[in-house]
Amino acid sequence: MPAETPAPASLDLTADPVAITRAICDIPSESGEERVLADLIEQALAGASHLEVVRDGDAIVARTNLGRARRVVIAGHIDTVPINGNVPTRFETDPDGTEYLWGRGTVDMKAGVAVQLKLALELAEPIVDLTWMWYDHEEVSAALNGLGRLAANRPDLFEGDFAILGEPSNGQVEGGCNGTLRAEVRATGLRAHSARSWVGENAIHKLSPALAKLAAYEAETVEVDGLAYREGLNAVIVRGGIAGNVIPDEAVLEVNYRFAPSKSAAEAAEFVTSFFDGYEVTVVDSADGARPGLDDPLAQEFVRAVGAEPRPKYGWTDVARFSALGVPAVNFGPGDPLKAHADDERVAVHQIVDGERALRAWLTGAA
Amino acid sequence: MPAETPAPASLDLTADPVAITRAICDIPSESGEERVLADLIEQALAGASHLEVVRDGDAIVARTNLGRARRVVIAGHIDTVPINGNVPTRFETDPDGTEYLWGRGTVDMKAGVAVQLKLALELAEPIVDLTWMWYDHEEVSAALNGLGRLAANRPDLFEGDFAILGEPSNGQVEGGCNGTLRAEVRATGLRAHSARSWVGENAIHKLSPALAKLAAYEAETVEVDGLAYREGLNAVIVRGGIAGNVIPDEAVLEVNYRFAPSKSAAEAAEFVTSFFDGYEVTVVDSADGARPGLDDPLAQEFVRAVGAEPRPKYGWTDVARFSALGVPAVNFGPGDPLKAHADDERVAVHQIVDGERALRAWLTGAA
Repeated sequence: MPAETPAPASLDLTADPVAITRAICDIPSESGEERVLADLIEQALAGASHLEVVRDGDAIVARTNLGRARRVVIAGHIDTVPINGNVPTRFETDPDGTEYLWGRGTVDMKAGVAVQLKLALELAEPIVDLTWMWYDHEEVSAALNGLGRLAANRPDLFEGDFAILGEPSNGQVEGGCNGTLRAEVRATGLRAHSARSWVGENAIHKLSPALAKLAAYEAETVEVDGLAYREGLNAVIVRGGIAGNVIPDEAVLEVNYRFAPSKSAAEAAEFVTSFFDGYEVTVVDSADGARPGLDDPLAQEFVRAVGAEPRPKYGWTDVARFSALGVPAVNFGPGDPLKAHADDERVAVHQIVDGERALRAWLTGAA
Repeated sequence: MPAETPAPASLDLTADPVAITRAICDIPSESGEERVLADLIEQALAGASHLEVVRDGDAIVARTNLGRARRVVIAGHIDTVPINGNVPTRFETDPDGTEYLWGRGTVDMKAGVAVQLKLALELAEPIVDLTWMWYDHEEVSAALNGLGRLAANRPDLFEGDFAILGEPSNGQVEGGCNGTLRAEVRATGLRAHSARSWVGENAIHKLSPALAKLAAYEAETVEVDGLAYREGLNAVIVRGGIAGNVIPDEAVLEVNYRFAPSKSAAEAAEFVTSFFDGYEVTVVDSADGARPGLDDPLAQEFVRAVGAEPRPKYGWTDVARFSALGVPAVNFGPGDPLKAHADDERVAVHQIVDGERALRAWLTGAA
């Protein structure tokens, strides 16, 4: 492996967005290690007279105060999942001629951040006021999430009429997101030596009806604000047993329910609890989804401007944080979400270029 | 806790069997740590002119060579499962007046060993030739088992017409033992993010038919040589899953099949494999059971002499090793097997006294 390149002294945000993507991917910023990149971002924007720059930990907020009638928040996280031999980045070209930038963070989500950084510096006169947010700790526990911390410390910065999160969406507009809930479904029995199994009660066997019901269940597809949200109810973990010669007295099925944003986390918990009636059901964690908000006029303008058919987002993303604050929000960013976190993470170069062009056109009224 | 008492300089095998039980329980001999006790046993028998004493590791064999027409092998293991604050031993009396000796090893199986040691020393003129065996490493992996090692090193010592293993059987005669087999039943699927579960195949869900079949299965009871062996087929471990947001691509149900001694381990493997047809079934380990051997005249004499109704033994014991060598074998020892390995392990004092008397009577022709 090549020796690690020292971080550059500064970021050149006048470069093309592909070059900026490459530069910031080559500065490692795994969750918890965002400082170097955050410093460079802060420094690169410090001289822009059209921006008010606020720092909170390793999150940077930059906003215009032009007195526009409407304000749009555009956000992206600057951390990545751990590097796995896939930094520094490199270009590669597929047999069909498609050019990719390969490496950790190219999809999730430094290409999106690069586009945002360039536009933040260059758009001194956007048609709406803009609040740019780049934040830390998105790829780890929700309790550490930089956007969550910012919302707690500076809720005033979240004021806006519409929000765009630059999570990878193949350059399409993905509205809202499903909610998610994890629960433990527990069966209990009576421990015994397996040579005299009739003395005990087998807790693993008692999971059978729950598992059968789960395996037979067909998840719903729910239409919310015109988008079809496909749900899912799945066992994600199963565990039980003490030793090869003991009838187990406890077995646990951990299930994950992904539910449409028209349902609350409380409703989801009620559904799961009643689905597994007869078992001890414990909700381990849950998060509301986010409605797509595509009935909002600003959202409709945006969708028209970028010329894409809006689609539902299935995975939970930080758009839900905006949604919870009453700001309609969508995902819009370069990169195929199926390549996020993959060791062969790579973004099609044209998606970065197209993404920058579309967002610039909309924000300058040229779309 | 009282400080550990140093091991005594010698064992007094002329003491009553309860006192001997107590003495050898207070000498810790967890599996692998049998040396001190083995040394004391060897030393206590060394002066007995009617015995030929052989040592193999920490196993001691003592036998008479009186030219009797028949030879009986009587064996017991000298190791225990780990002590858990239950040594030294103490006496306790139940409200109903029953006196117990409490502590690790009292049931499994130093009371049985104490009876054997006393009789080995004192019976210089038994009506059959006797081969006494006390061995190490019974409570751990079968590969370490001292009786197995002895059978490999000195198969000649196993020559005999009948064998008695002093495993706890409440002073009853328990014939033979069930066989045991463990197998892994594996389902495979396709990993995916749980937000898009329809892209994957859930391996845990695929275990559902196997688990349903298992939960519904009613184990057989099989009559072998006049004893009814109750079988059991049980899940003992279940595991599967990667993380709370991943559709798992593998799930494993580990099952334990306890099968009647009329079936071979190979037949048991065939049954389990066909029971879980459609899954990948891997037999992890297995051991043949042992037929009770109660049709043997010597066994019938013994049963009559000790005056007990013979019963089947469900758990696998080392009688199967004798059975495999063609020596019919039964379990006969003081102590309730349900208290073996328990933290409140304790033996009824009268079972030690009665057991010694019954065995002595039979071996001296007084029964």
